[in-house]
Amino acid sequence: MELFSDEYYMNEALKQAQIAFEEGEIPVGAVIVSKNKIIARAYNQTEKLNDVTAHAEMIAITSAANYLGAKYLPECKLYVTLEPCTMCGGALFWSQIGKVFYGAEDPKRGFRKTNVGILHPKTELQGGLLAQESEKLLLDFFKKLRN
Amino acid sequence: MELFSDEYYMNEALKQAQIAFEEGEIPVGAVIVSKNKIIARAYNQTEKLNDVTAHAEMIAITSAANYLGAKYLPECKLYVTLEPCTMCGGALFWSQIGKVFYGAEDPKRGFRKTNVGILHPKTELQGGLLAQESEKLLLDFFKKLRN
Repeated sequence: MELFSDEYYMNEALKQAQIAFEEGEIPVGAVIVSKNKIIARAYNQTEKLNDVTAHAEMIAITSAANYLGAKYLPECKLYVTLEPCTMCGGALFWSQIGKVFYGAEDPKRGFRKTNVGILHPKTELQGGLLAQESEKLLLDFFKKLRN
Repeated sequence: MELFSDEYYMNEALKQAQIAFEEGEIPVGAVIVSKNKIIARAYNQTEKLNDVTAHAEMIAITSAANYLGAKYLPECKLYVTLEPCTMCGGALFWSQIGKVFYGAEDPKRGFRKTNVGILHPKTELQGGLLAQESEKLLLDFFKKLRN
Protein backbone atom coordinates (compact mmCIF):
# COMPACT_ATOMS: atom_id res chain seq x y z
CA MET A 1 0.00 0.00 0.00
CA GLU A 2 1.41 3.35 -1.02
CA LEU A 3 1.98 5.82 1.75
CA PHE A 4 0.95 9.41 1.34
CA SER A 5 2.09 12.44 3.30
CA ASP A 6 -0.08 14.47 5.64
CA GLU A 7 0.15 17.29 3.09
CA TYR A 8 -1.31 14.98 0.49
CA TYR A 9 -4.35 14.23 2.64
CA MET A 10 -4.82 17.88 3.59
CA ASN A 11 -4.70 18.71 -0.09
CA GLU A 12 -7.55 16.25 -0.59
CA ALA A 13 -9.45 18.09 2.14
CA LEU A 14 -8.74 21.34 0.30
CA LYS A 15 -10.29 19.86 -2.84
CA GLN A 16 -13.45 19.27 -0.79
CA ALA A 17 -13.32 22.87 0.43
CA GLN A 18 -13.04 23.97 -3.21
CA ILE A 19 -16.26 22.10 -4.02
CA ALA A 20 -17.97 23.91 -1.13
CA PHE A 21 -16.66 27.21 -2.54
CA GLU A 22 -18.11 26.49 -5.96
CA GLU A 23 -21.47 25.59 -4.39
CA GLY A 24 -21.66 28.82 -2.43
CA GLU A 25 -20.91 27.20 0.92
CA ILE A 26 -18.32 28.49 3.38
CA PRO A 27 -15.32 26.58 1.99
CA VAL A 28 -14.29 24.03 4.58
CA GLY A 29 -13.39 20.48 3.60
CA ALA A 30 -12.39 17.33 5.45
CA VAL A 31 -11.20 13.81 4.85
CA ILE A 32 -10.82 10.91 7.26
CA VAL A 33 -8.02 8.41 6.74
CA SER A 34 -7.86 4.87 8.08
CA LYS A 35 -4.81 2.71 7.39
CA ASN A 36 -3.56 5.12 4.72
CA LYS A 37 -6.87 5.05 2.90
CA ILE A 38 -9.35 7.90 2.62
CA ILE A 39 -12.61 6.47 3.95
CA ALA A 40 -14.63 9.71 4.09
CA ARG A 41 -14.64 12.97 2.14
CA ALA A 42 -16.94 15.82 3.05
CA TYR A 43 -17.47 19.54 2.75
CA ASN A 44 -19.59 22.06 4.53
CA GLN A 45 -23.20 21.83 3.38
CA THR A 46 -25.07 24.02 5.84
CA GLU A 47 -26.76 26.02 3.04
CA LYS A 48 -27.67 23.14 0.75
CA LEU A 49 -29.01 20.99 3.58
CA ASN A 50 -30.47 23.96 5.44
CA ASP A 51 -28.85 22.55 8.57
CA VAL A 52 -26.42 24.29 10.90
CA THR A 53 -25.03 20.93 11.98
CA ALA A 54 -23.88 19.96 8.46
CA HIS A 55 -20.23 20.94 8.93
CA ALA A 56 -17.60 19.03 6.95
CA GLU A 57 -16.27 17.29 10.08
CA MET A 58 -19.73 16.13 11.23
CA ILE A 59 -20.54 14.63 7.85
CA ALA A 60 -17.09 13.03 7.69
CA ILE A 61 -17.42 11.45 11.16
CA THR A 62 -20.84 9.97 10.33
CA SER A 63 -19.57 8.76 6.96
CA ALA A 64 -16.41 7.16 8.38
CA ALA A 65 -18.39 5.35 11.08
CA ASN A 66 -20.74 4.06 8.38
CA TYR A 67 -17.80 2.85 6.32
CA LEU A 68 -16.12 1.09 9.23
CA GLY A 69 -19.31 -0.19 10.84
CA ALA A 70 -17.86 1.17 14.07
CA LYS A 71 -18.90 4.16 16.11
CA TYR A 72 -15.41 4.97 17.40
CA LEU A 73 -12.49 6.04 15.23
CA PRO A 74 -9.34 5.63 17.35
CA GLU A 75 -7.25 4.48 14.39
CA CYS A 76 -8.41 7.25 12.11
CA LYS A 77 -6.99 10.66 11.26
CA LEU A 78 -9.07 13.68 10.35
CA TYR A 79 -7.71 16.34 8.02
CA VAL A 80 -9.83 19.47 8.02
CA THR A 81 -8.97 22.77 6.36
CA LEU A 82 -10.18 24.97 9.25
CA GLU A 83 -9.83 24.57 13.00
CA PRO A 84 -12.99 22.75 14.14
CA CYS A 85 -15.69 24.71 15.98
CA THR A 86 -16.96 23.77 19.44
CA MET A 87 -19.68 21.52 18.01
CA CYS A 88 -17.23 19.63 15.83
CA GLY A 89 -14.65 19.48 18.61
CA GLY A 90 -17.34 17.91 20.82
CA ALA A 91 -18.22 15.40 18.11
CA LEU A 92 -14.53 14.54 17.67
CA PHE A 93 -14.35 13.93 21.41
CA TRP A 94 -17.16 11.38 21.22
CA SER A 95 -15.54 9.72 18.18
CA GLN A 96 -12.26 9.16 20.08
CA ILE A 97 -10.49 9.87 16.79
CA GLY A 98 -6.75 9.18 16.77
CA LYS A 99 -5.42 12.43 15.36
CA VAL A 100 -6.76 15.74 14.09
CA PHE A 101 -4.88 17.88 11.57
CA TYR A 102 -6.29 21.28 10.76
CA GLY A 103 -5.23 24.04 8.38
CA ALA A 104 -6.16 27.62 9.20
CA GLU A 105 -6.82 28.74 12.75
CA ASP A 106 -10.21 30.05 13.83
CA PRO A 107 -9.64 32.23 16.88
CA LYS A 108 -13.30 33.29 17.01
CA ARG A 109 -15.16 30.00 16.66
CA GLY A 110 -12.42 27.39 17.04
CA PHE A 111 -12.72 24.81 19.79
CA ARG A 112 -9.34 25.76 21.27
CA LYS A 113 -10.74 28.91 22.85
CA THR A 114 -12.18 26.98 25.79
CA ASN A 115 -10.37 26.27 29.03
CA VAL A 116 -11.10 22.56 29.07
CA GLY A 117 -9.72 19.96 26.73
CA ILE A 118 -12.59 19.40 24.34
CA LEU A 119 -10.91 16.60 22.38
CA HIS A 120 -10.50 13.12 23.81
CA PRO A 121 -7.30 12.84 25.91
CA LYS A 122 -5.97 10.22 23.49
CA THR A 123 -6.53 12.38 20.41
CA GLU A 124 -3.41 14.02 18.98
CA LEU A 125 -3.67 17.47 17.46
CA GLN A 126 -1.62 19.28 14.83
CA GLY A 127 -2.55 22.66 13.39
CA GLY A 128 -1.22 24.82 10.58
CA LEU A 129 -1.07 22.18 7.82
CA LEU A 130 -1.45 24.02 4.47
CA ALA A 131 -2.90 26.84 6.54
CA GLN A 132 -2.18 29.53 3.94
CA GLU A 133 -3.99 27.69 1.15
CA SER A 134 -6.98 27.07 3.41
CA GLU A 135 -7.09 30.67 4.61
CA LYS A 136 -6.81 32.04 1.09
CA LEU A 137 -9.86 30.03 0.01
CA LEU A 138 -11.87 31.37 2.96
CA LEU A 139 -10.76 34.97 2.33
CA ASP A 140 -11.59 34.66 -1.38
CA PHE A 141 -15.03 33.35 -0.45
CA PHE A 142 -15.91 36.18 1.89
CA LYS A 143 -14.47 38.74 -0.54
CA LYS A 144 -16.70 37.34 -3.29
CA LEU A 145 -19.68 37.36 -0.92
CA ARG A 146 -19.19 41.05 -0.18
CA ASN A 147 -19.02 42.01 -3.87
CA MET B 1 -54.22 27.69 20.18
CA GLU B 2 -54.00 25.97 23.52
CA LEU B 3 -51.05 26.90 25.69
CA PHE B 4 -49.06 24.26 27.48
CA SER B 5 -46.64 24.63 30.36
CA ASP B 6 -42.90 24.11 30.19
CA GLU B 7 -43.43 21.00 32.35
CA TYR B 8 -45.80 19.64 29.72
CA TYR B 9 -43.18 19.98 26.99
CA MET B 10 -40.42 18.54 29.18
CA ASN B 11 -42.69 15.61 29.90
CA GLU B 12 -42.98 15.08 26.15
CA ALA B 13 -39.17 15.06 26.01
CA LEU B 14 -39.19 12.47 28.82
CA LYS B 15 -41.46 10.28 26.70
CA GLN B 16 -38.80 10.41 23.99
CA ALA B 17 -36.16 9.46 26.56
CA GLN B 18 -38.33 6.52 27.57
CA ILE B 19 -38.36 5.28 23.97
CA ALA B 20 -34.55 5.49 23.95
CA PHE B 21 -34.48 3.50 27.20
CA GLU B 22 -36.63 0.77 25.70
CA GLU B 23 -34.39 0.60 22.63
CA GLY B 24 -31.23 0.21 24.73
CA GLU B 25 -29.99 3.75 24.09
CA ILE B 26 -28.80 6.10 26.82
CA PRO B 27 -32.17 7.64 27.67
CA VAL B 28 -32.11 11.27 26.60
CA GLY B 29 -35.03 12.86 24.79
CA ALA B 30 -35.77 16.26 23.33
CA VAL B 31 -38.56 18.25 21.74
CA ILE B 32 -38.45 21.61 19.97
CA VAL B 33 -41.42 23.93 20.25
CA SER B 34 -42.33 26.77 17.90
CA LYS B 35 -45.35 28.96 18.59
CA ASN B 36 -46.64 26.51 21.21
CA LYS B 37 -46.44 23.58 18.80
CA ILE B 38 -44.03 20.69 19.00
CA ILE B 39 -42.25 20.67 15.64
CA ALA B 40 -39.55 18.09 16.43
CA ARG B 41 -39.31 15.06 18.72
CA ALA B 42 -36.10 13.07 19.03
CA TYR B 43 -34.19 10.68 21.23
CA ASN B 44 -30.61 9.54 21.42
CA GLN B 45 -29.87 7.02 18.67
CA THR B 46 -26.10 6.65 18.80
CA GLU B 47 -26.32 2.86 19.02
CA LYS B 48 -28.98 2.26 16.41
CA LEU B 49 -27.41 4.66 13.90
CA ASN B 50 -23.86 3.70 14.90
CA ASP B 51 -23.10 7.41 15.02
CA VAL B 52 -21.67 9.36 17.95
CA THR B 53 -23.27 12.53 16.60
CA ALA B 54 -26.84 11.16 16.82
CA HIS B 55 -27.72 12.84 20.12
CA ALA B 56 -31.36 13.80 20.72
CA GLU B 57 -30.61 17.51 20.42
CA MET B 58 -28.73 17.16 17.11
CA ILE B 59 -31.56 15.19 15.54
CA ALA B 60 -34.13 17.63 16.92
CA ILE B 61 -32.27 20.68 15.53
CA THR B 62 -32.00 19.13 12.05
CA SER B 63 -35.63 18.06 12.20
CA ALA B 64 -36.92 21.47 13.33
CA ALA B 65 -34.95 23.27 10.61
CA ASN B 66 -36.43 20.89 8.06
CA TYR B 67 -39.93 21.56 9.35
CA LEU B 68 -39.53 25.33 9.31
CA GLY B 69 -37.50 25.47 6.11
CA ALA B 70 -35.16 27.76 8.04
CA LYS B 71 -31.68 27.11 9.33
CA TYR B 72 -31.98 29.35 12.39
CA LEU B 73 -34.38 28.79 15.27
CA PRO B 74 -34.55 32.07 17.22
CA GLU B 75 -38.25 31.67 17.96
CA CYS B 76 -37.96 28.07 19.11
CA LYS B 77 -37.51 26.46 22.50
CA LEU B 78 -35.65 23.23 23.11
CA TYR B 79 -36.64 20.92 25.96
CA VAL B 80 -34.03 18.24 26.62
CA THR B 81 -33.96 15.84 29.54
CA LEU B 82 -30.18 16.09 30.16
CA GLU B 83 -27.85 19.09 30.07
CA PRO B 84 -26.46 19.19 26.50
CA CYS B 85 -22.86 18.11 25.90
CA THR B 86 -20.25 20.34 24.27
CA MET B 87 -21.14 19.11 20.78
CA CYS B 88 -24.83 19.82 21.27
CA GLY B 89 -24.10 23.14 22.98
CA GLY B 90 -22.05 24.11 19.92
CA ALA B 91 -24.86 23.06 17.59
CA LEU B 92 -27.34 25.07 19.67
CA PHE B 93 -25.04 28.07 19.32
CA TRP B 94 -25.15 27.82 15.51
CA SER B 95 -28.96 27.38 15.57
CA GLN B 96 -29.41 30.64 17.53
CA ILE B 97 -32.26 28.92 19.35
CA GLY B 98 -34.39 31.17 21.55
CA LYS B 99 -34.39 29.16 24.79
CA VAL B 100 -32.99 25.93 26.14
CA PHE B 101 -34.63 24.04 29.01
CA TYR B 102 -32.82 21.02 30.39
CA GLY B 103 -33.63 18.50 33.08
CA ALA B 104 -30.78 16.74 34.87
CA GLU B 105 -27.33 18.30 35.13
CA ASP B 106 -24.29 16.65 33.55
CA PRO B 107 -21.24 17.94 35.43
CA LYS B 108 -18.88 15.64 33.51
CA ARG B 109 -19.93 16.13 29.91
CA GLY B 110 -22.28 19.11 30.08
CA PHE B 111 -21.46 22.22 28.04
CA ARG B 112 -21.52 24.46 31.09
CA LYS B 113 -18.10 23.24 32.26
CA THR B 114 -16.28 25.55 29.81
CA ASN B 115 -15.17 29.08 30.59
CA VAL B 116 -16.67 30.62 27.49
CA GLY B 117 -20.33 31.05 26.71
CA ILE B 118 -20.99 28.20 24.31
CA LEU B 119 -24.61 29.12 23.60
CA HIS B 120 -25.55 32.11 21.47
CA PRO B 121 -25.68 35.32 23.56
CA LYS B 122 -29.38 35.68 22.74
CA THR B 123 -30.24 32.14 23.89
CA GLU B 124 -31.92 31.90 27.28
CA LEU B 125 -31.16 28.95 29.52
CA GLN B 126 -33.10 27.22 32.27
CA GLY B 127 -31.99 24.03 33.98
CA GLY B 128 -33.57 21.66 36.47
CA LEU B 129 -36.95 21.16 34.79
CA LEU B 130 -38.25 17.70 35.83
CA ALA B 131 -34.63 16.95 36.72
CA GLN B 132 -35.49 14.13 39.13
CA GLU B 133 -37.58 12.23 36.60
CA SER B 134 -34.84 12.57 34.00
CA GLU B 135 -32.09 11.52 36.39
CA LYS B 136 -34.08 8.51 37.58
CA LEU B 137 -34.43 7.25 34.02
CA LEU B 138 -30.68 7.60 33.46
CA LEU B 139 -29.83 5.89 36.75
CA ASP B 140 -32.25 3.04 36.00
CA PHE B 141 -30.63 2.62 32.59
CA PHE B 142 -27.07 2.36 33.89
CA LYS B 143 -28.21 0.09 36.73
CA LYS B 144 -29.85 -2.21 34.18
CA LEU B 145 -26.72 -2.08 32.02
CA ARG B 146 -24.53 -3.23 34.92
CA ASN B 147 -26.77 -6.17 35.76
